[in-house]
Amino acid sequence: MVQNFADRLDLSIEQKKSCLVVGLDPVLERLPREVLSEVGVPAVGEPGWTARAASATGVFLRGVIDVVAEHAVAVKPNAGFFERFGAAGVDCLRQVSEHAVRQGLLVICDAKRGDIGHTAEAYADSILGDAPDTLGPVTDAVTLNPYLGEDSVRPFLDKCSGGKGLFLLVRTSNPSGADIQELEVAGEPLYLTVARLVGRWGDGLRGEGGLNPVGVVVGATAPGQAAAVREELPEAFFLVPGYGAQGAGAEELAPFFIEGGRGVVVNSSRSVLYAFDGREDDWRAAVGEAASRAREDLEAVRSSRA
Amino acid sequence: MVQNFADRLDLSIEQKKSCLVVGLDPVLERLPREVLSEVGVPAVGEPGWTARAASATGVFLRGVIDVVAEHAVAVKPNAGFFERFGAAGVDCLRQVSEHAVRQGLLVICDAKRGDIGHTAEAYADSILGDAPDTLGPVTDAVTLNPYLGEDSVRPFLDKCSGGKGLFLLVRTSNPSGADIQELEVAGEPLYLTVARLVGRWGDGLRGEGGLNPVGVVVGATAPGQAAAVREELPEAFFLVPGYGAQGAGAEELAPFFIEGGRGVVVNSSRSVLYAFDGREDDWRAAVGEAASRAREDLEAVRSSRA
Repeated sequence: MVQNFADRLDLSIEQKKSCLVVGLDPVLERLPREVLSEVGVPAVGEPGWTARAASATGVFLRGVIDVVAEHAVAVKPNAGFFERFGAAGVDCLRQVSEHAVRQGLLVICDAKRGDIGHTAEAYADSILGDAPDTLGPVTDAVTLNPYLGEDSVRPFLDKCSGGKGLFLLVRTSNPSGADIQELEVAGEPLYLTVARLVGRWGDGLRGEGGLNPVGVVVGATAPGQAAAVREELPEAFFLVPGYGAQGAGAEELAPFFIEGGRGVVVNSSRSVLYAFDGREDDWRAAVGEAASRAREDLEAVRSSRA
Repeated sequence: MVQNFADRLDLSIEQKKSCLVVGLDPVLERLPREVLSEVGVPAVGEPGWTARAASATGVFLRGVIDVVAEHAVAVKPNAGFFERFGAAGVDCLRQVSEHAVRQGLLVICDAKRGDIGHTAEAYADSILGDAPDTLGPVTDAVTLNPYLGEDSVRPFLDKCSGGKGLFLLVRTSNPSGADIQELEVAGEPLYLTVARLVGRWGDGLRGEGGLNPVGVVVGATAPGQAAAVREELPEAFFLVPGYGAQGAGAEELAPFFIEGGRGVVVNSSRSVLYAFDGREDDWRAAVGEAASRAREDLEAVRSSRA
């Protein structure tokens, strides 16, 4: 029997004693020089650039996955960074996700898709389907944009009974996140209305442990917001970006958790991925240690809520 | 000197006497049997499925492009339908776009992206950048989701000075489009606030002909909405889906146009693409004739506004 995504994630957090998600945002110029020279990446625009760039990215991220696997519950590959390398990048994304699955990590594809009708079905099949050589078989969950409403999310909701999970954007951590998300609707910010809609969309999909595979993305830059969204969605998994390089400290994360230190995963991308700055000779160890520190930092908060 | 996207689109409409965009939403099961048997597509899940599916899709869409090129100003490949075939599908999307450019069509990549910070930059480079073997060199414009606000759109706005265009989702034509887009903000529906934001984002990017390369997507299912959005955005290009198979007739499109029958392109996907149902033996001619009819139908409305 297929296990509910919320149960799988919840169990992994409990077993690993970690709510850390490592965001995979590969930037070619920041890869370890050792990797770049091993693969031999030509300048942008020269023949074979995309294939070599994707290849170097794959070598780097597989190395990262090997050393973060014991400290994190999931990786969150960010589709845009892979799509820069065209089809070769998309293949790299699939291979990297496959490697993460082999290393016992869950894979949250950060694709932020949102489309209607048959296109929504096509995206759901692309990312959460079961065709070989696509992302589906190696992806556990996906991030989605709610702007197009319920029917745009429906084909993804249908994948949840097959063990997949979703994270709907509710309140993002970028400076312009407020432009639309904070508009006042019926006396409250729009993102709370969106949170309530997400709760309705996830109705009936709750796992055995009481958590829901239809989760939300809520930035860590404003803790008051976190508490308000949590009140609307007592059983949703929260994917929280904005920890580490993006600014927030672990102590600001407390309001996200529910009883027992459950229901939250926290993403850290650059502060783990590029922890080897100035320590290139042993980049794998530097990345592993950064993941270990991030996990301990987060565990201090999580256990305070347990 | 690079020509503004709005000027390029405006000129093409004028020269071709057409505001038709053909949406490329390829569904494997609906391809002409001739194409499927020529390529030999195995069942989903069998080895080589993605490569063969992408190959058949490419054969079909190049054939479509050849016969619609004289009737349409642009094609709108829908990224989700290509991503179903993994990396092979993304390569197919690039090749099909390249073929459309060769045939004198503009290419609007319907990707509906929306992300923040460095990821937004990565997506802008992926779709509107200049690296060979990526979509950038063969893509003129992209559809975007506004939910994350101005900074999520900024890297795409920066591409407009290089001749690229954007279409921001404002009011979509799906049944659940109202869930969020019609929420009341300051006494009016949210989508009007979004339209006003889009106008601000496009400030200073207007082309020589007075139209703006920062356009919007507004569904054709509610003409009152069209007039309201047009009032907010007198100089924006409107990309209008929902004509043909999705429901609206050409006569409902009149409020979208500005003086001179300008500022509008209308998308038709399935009613052109699959016009050969029951006439498989001559599918190319059937598709070409459907495009020709759609163009004439739209010209009757456009010229009534000229």
